[in-house]
Amino acid sequence: MSLPLDPRTFMARAIELSRLHMEAGEGGPFGAVVVKDGVIVGEGWNRVTSTCDPTAHAEVTAIRQACASLASFSLQGCEIYTSCEPCPMCLAAIYWARLGRIYYANDQADAAAISFDDAWLYREVALPLPDRSLPLTQLMREEALAVFRAWDAKADKIRY
Amino acid sequence: MSLPLDPRTFMARAIELSRLHMEAGEGGPFGAVVVKDGVIVGEGWNRVTSTCDPTAHAEVTAIRQACASLASFSLQGCEIYTSCEPCPMCLAAIYWARLGRIYYANDQADAAAISFDDAWLYREVALPLPDRSLPLTQLMREEALAVFRAWDAKADKIRY
Repeated sequence: MSLPLDPRTFMARAIELSRLHMEAGEGGPFGAVVVKDGVIVGEGWNRVTSTCDPTAHAEVTAIRQACASLASFSLQGCEIYTSCEPCPMCLAAIYWARLGRIYYANDQADAAAISFDDAWLYREVALPLPDRSLPLTQLMREEALAVFRAWDAKADKIRY
Repeated sequence: MSLPLDPRTFMARAIELSRLHMEAGEGGPFGAVVVKDGVIVGEGWNRVTSTCDPTAHAEVTAIRQACASLASFSLQGCEIYTSCEPCPMCLAAIYWARLGRIYYANDQADAAAISFDDAWLYREVALPLPDRSLPLTQLMREEALAVFRAWDAKADKIRY
């Protein structure tokens, strides 16, 4: 008999989601669940191609669903189970969501073998701005800084 | 008279969005627009706290709106104007969306000065897995690999 808090139970669900929705043609083979106190509070799967949303990766959609169901922008005290090691977008989303632990199954090399080259993206994100393949240009900093100063002075702001 | 394709026109709109929605209490002071052939096809602003979505940064929401309006998961040939240098989540989302260029106004140091510490997150994302402050555990790789193999063999898959 498996314990209800066995991490394998939740990972099995993440992997099941990856298979079901891939077979349904909704996107790439990726699934994820967010767990709080031994209960799944959010499920996600890749929906990039079916919803025309390049940000609709499994982890991001699981985070969105979990936050909606908990009515909170913080998932502090929760864990995420993902069928594949997160890409940089999903990893940063996991940090922003304040998740406490990541369980993953497939790793970066496995993803690269089926043409999802997260390793390249990890390298790009880590490069200094002028060295990236995607050009960045700074302009109108002074105008934008004025808005930052207004935020800093805003008495009723909600930090996150 | 300013030319319609002057990058300052689009950045001014991104900055305007950052101010309007910050003042309305929807989230942090960040705005972004996606431009295709000199026309704005998507607008976004930070809605983290007001929509309980930690992924609702300005760039991500602008990308989602642009993709919806173009009915495409690719923004190839488009540019993004953001009132602040993107965090790693937004930067990776910009790569996934195939955007061709980034214009930004405030930079990482400006964001850090108002307590948005993207620099720390950039460092975390670049670290080897065991060195990150957020623990990662691998399990059930074999089960998940089976789904990757099924994807690889799927005849009608849509790559992205």
